[in-house]
Amino acid sequence: MLTNTRVDVVVVGAGLAGLVAARELRAAGATVQVLEARGRVGGRTLNHDLPNGEVVEAGGQFVGPTQKHVLALAKDLGVATFPANDAGDTVYVHGARAKRYSGDIPPDYAALPDIGVMMARLERLTRTIDLAKPWNSPNAAELDKLTTESWARKLSLGRGGVELLEALLASAYGTTAAEASALFTLWYVAGAGDEDHPGSLARLMGVAGGAQESRFVGGSQLLSLRMAEELDGAVTLNAPARRITQTPGGVTVSTDDQAWEADHVIVATPPHLVTQIDFDPLLPAQQAALFARMTFGMLMKCEAIYDRPFWRDQGLSGQGVFRGQSGPVCSMFDNSPPPGEPGVLMGFLGAREWKNWSTRPAHERRGAVLRSFAKVVGPQALEPVDYFEQDWTLEPWTRGGPTSVLAPGVLTELGRWRDVPHGSVHWAGAEHADYWNGFMDGAVRSGKDAAAAVSATTSRPTAARSTETRTEFTTGESP
Amino acid sequence: MLTNTRVDVVVVGAGLAGLVAARELRAAGATVQVLEARGRVGGRTLNHDLPNGEVVEAGGQFVGPTQKHVLALAKDLGVATFPANDAGDTVYVHGARAKRYSGDIPPDYAALPDIGVMMARLERLTRTIDLAKPWNSPNAAELDKLTTESWARKLSLGRGGVELLEALLASAYGTTAAEASALFTLWYVAGAGDEDHPGSLARLMGVAGGAQESRFVGGSQLLSLRMAEELDGAVTLNAPARRITQTPGGVTVSTDDQAWEADHVIVATPPHLVTQIDFDPLLPAQQAALFARMTFGMLMKCEAIYDRPFWRDQGLSGQGVFRGQSGPVCSMFDNSPPPGEPGVLMGFLGAREWKNWSTRPAHERRGAVLRSFAKVVGPQALEPVDYFEQDWTLEPWTRGGPTSVLAPGVLTELGRWRDVPHGSVHWAGAEHADYWNGFMDGAVRSGKDAAAAVSATTSRPTAARSTETRTEFTTGESP
Repeated sequence: MLTNTRVDVVVVGAGLAGLVAARELRAAGATVQVLEARGRVGGRTLNHDLPNGEVVEAGGQFVGPTQKHVLALAKDLGVATFPANDAGDTVYVHGARAKRYSGDIPPDYAALPDIGVMMARLERLTRTIDLAKPWNSPNAAELDKLTTESWARKLSLGRGGVELLEALLASAYGTTAAEASALFTLWYVAGAGDEDHPGSLARLMGVAGGAQESRFVGGSQLLSLRMAEELDGAVTLNAPARRITQTPGGVTVSTDDQAWEADHVIVATPPHLVTQIDFDPLLPAQQAALFARMTFGMLMKCEAIYDRPFWRDQGLSGQGVFRGQSGPVCSMFDNSPPPGEPGVLMGFLGAREWKNWSTRPAHERRGAVLRSFAKVVGPQALEPVDYFEQDWTLEPWTRGGPTSVLAPGVLTELGRWRDVPHGSVHWAGAEHADYWNGFMDGAVRSGKDAAAAVSATTSRPTAARSTETRTEFTTGESP
Repeated sequence: MLTNTRVDVVVVGAGLAGLVAARELRAAGATVQVLEARGRVGGRTLNHDLPNGEVVEAGGQFVGPTQKHVLALAKDLGVATFPANDAGDTVYVHGARAKRYSGDIPPDYAALPDIGVMMARLERLTRTIDLAKPWNSPNAAELDKLTTESWARKLSLGRGGVELLEALLASAYGTTAAEASALFTLWYVAGAGDEDHPGSLARLMGVAGGAQESRFVGGSQLLSLRMAEELDGAVTLNAPARRITQTPGGVTVSTDDQAWEADHVIVATPPHLVTQIDFDPLLPAQQAALFARMTFGMLMKCEAIYDRPFWRDQGLSGQGVFRGQSGPVCSMFDNSPPPGEPGVLMGFLGAREWKNWSTRPAHERRGAVLRSFAKVVGPQALEPVDYFEQDWTLEPWTRGGPTSVLAPGVLTELGRWRDVPHGSVHWAGAEHADYWNGFMDGAVRSGKDAAAAVSATTSRPTAARSTETRTEFTTGESP
């Protein structure tokens, strides 16, 4: 029943990384086949249709300066960007209190010294991080032995500083500060830039001048939809890769229905889902151990739709920052489509708030989210015309979000295995990038890198390649 | 091609836990079917035949006081125990130096104060741990935010104390101290006992009076082999469970070749491998997130065989303790079979030493291991008549060892989901026990518990059961 089809490269996963890799390889003259487990393309990007024909995103959506790879791709595909709404005051919520402010610094005067200490220390330390080899950074071993929470405590931060850090990470990681290695957090911040602009916390967390500055007209999933259209016929949906078998003659990727033969495979799935694929030969144990430990955080997006963005009339940006336990919403944005209608408010429920709320009945959660929104934009928020949620932990081919967060010890012990090809199998995905790791830009960058690596190998003589492949398996040397 | 066979209970995994569960259920009158992914039973226990007809273990092997569940099982199956060799001096290796000693305290005078402080503090704190609900222990939240390494540093331990801790955990966890939550470590020590004997570090790490006190005549795998024999015909090998589907009418477990229908399923695989099974309905996200984070440490066992245990003539026990980086061996035991011939030395390579050595060519690793052995018992160790290794990270249905080690934040955030049934799917395995978690005794206890839970449910009226099952899925309430 299985039919074997031969292509130059099989790509597993039709998210941004996989589709970019396929597109690049096809442009270079290779034949490609993309296998996607879901019934749709786009991975962690997902458009949600609004009644007026506009779209809003249920997944990754923002784009900002230095994210040149995804911006270039969008331009190439004819997808425009527009600025996320940033006009007006942000609201800082602390328990029952809510306070308007402008600028980057929340008006939490008790926590201000902490915030200052933490940001200064973070910015200083991120400049010492070796982005390509974080395990070689000064004090890497010591920093990787600490949770981000222990690291913050060492700065003698008070409760306010730590609670604000928890709120930031709940949205950014979908984890608590105790679950992330301090070295990982510093490295993650250090990657919020590009070769010419060193990473910074302000760029990572900011709207104006930061990673939340702009959005894509037509929704971020449009990038993947356009690429899939271009690759017409070369993307198979509902086809999870079950087995990847390598022989000196090539690689076979088996789905439930079919087997595909190729010279190379690019696996562009979330790293922790790689462990669901049977590899023959097995992945090196270190690499398998690393991928298993690259678990995603826990995050859901909740969005309420109103006739119009009424908060703008009141001089509010629709943005809200919630100090720990003030939610359930951890952070909040005006997510209205470019014409400004309908009005959409979007909030993240991450980490502990996700845990507390994800299993509650839907109507209770909706009520709690709307009450969070109301703290920021007033009681009108309680009466949306529509409401929807996307819990990424319930997507079997994602199982969490937004990205892989590494626990203490993992980066220094196993991190160097992240991108090492397994024979003719290469890796791509947002978690396989140094700059903008976990972001759409990181995904696009990783797809281009994987395609380039495959092209480079393909240009070598075949005989040499197969010998090399076999040698890698038998000696299995460390990277 | 698929044929559906109906039984009362399907058990996934023919390790100790799964086989015990099947055995108990069958004794209670249920029909059972055990599905095992490997071509053998026994899970992380594995006998290795010696040329003289004796056996030695390549996996879990030791048994000791308070491990009453596995001891009762052995008695029931007619498997005898014998004392592990403990006569003679142990050798403490620190770099190039090796020092004989007797008793429990290594003769590292510089590190002695540290060891004293650490042990006293550990023993005191373990008594405060709520074993069934560690997240309710005093200071649980704070302790779970710390790595075990940070916790030790807070005691102001010097380099000697921390290095010795690393050596202990390298064998006990297969991880570094930075990878394990402090709360997890305290809980793990607190479980080294039973309802009448609170857990203690001495019992966990000790030979005489401890978890390494005795061994099974015929090898620990004999327990599983005997149970499989009893279950004749009800254990199918080479049958990995791929999919578990629940309907109001029951549960279907599908392998590549066949589907089995049952009222209940007990999944008794390593928790992190549960994520490889497709569940319909999906596991609750919290439970899936927990299981994904219950990754195993990294451990291999290296054993050298000699005509006779020559070290005993010199008054040596064959036991060695290696302070950090003195190895590659982290700890070492006389592993000779009960007649005392041949002589067998066994060493663990865990965590960093595993990482440094597992990918090196086999002959280099063999040489390094034998040189470690020679530091303890002299140069005769360099000339074994045979040598073998078992790297548990390379076993596709284990992928590490000896047990699940939880990173900071996991126990308090997700730990309560460990044993929660998913509709009619129950859980068993060494990681599903509070006492002797990760040990054979924990596996046996968990198998009995799962069987009892299934029997309790089965005795309720069927109509009530299916309603309840559906309710659980729709509300998905927290445990």
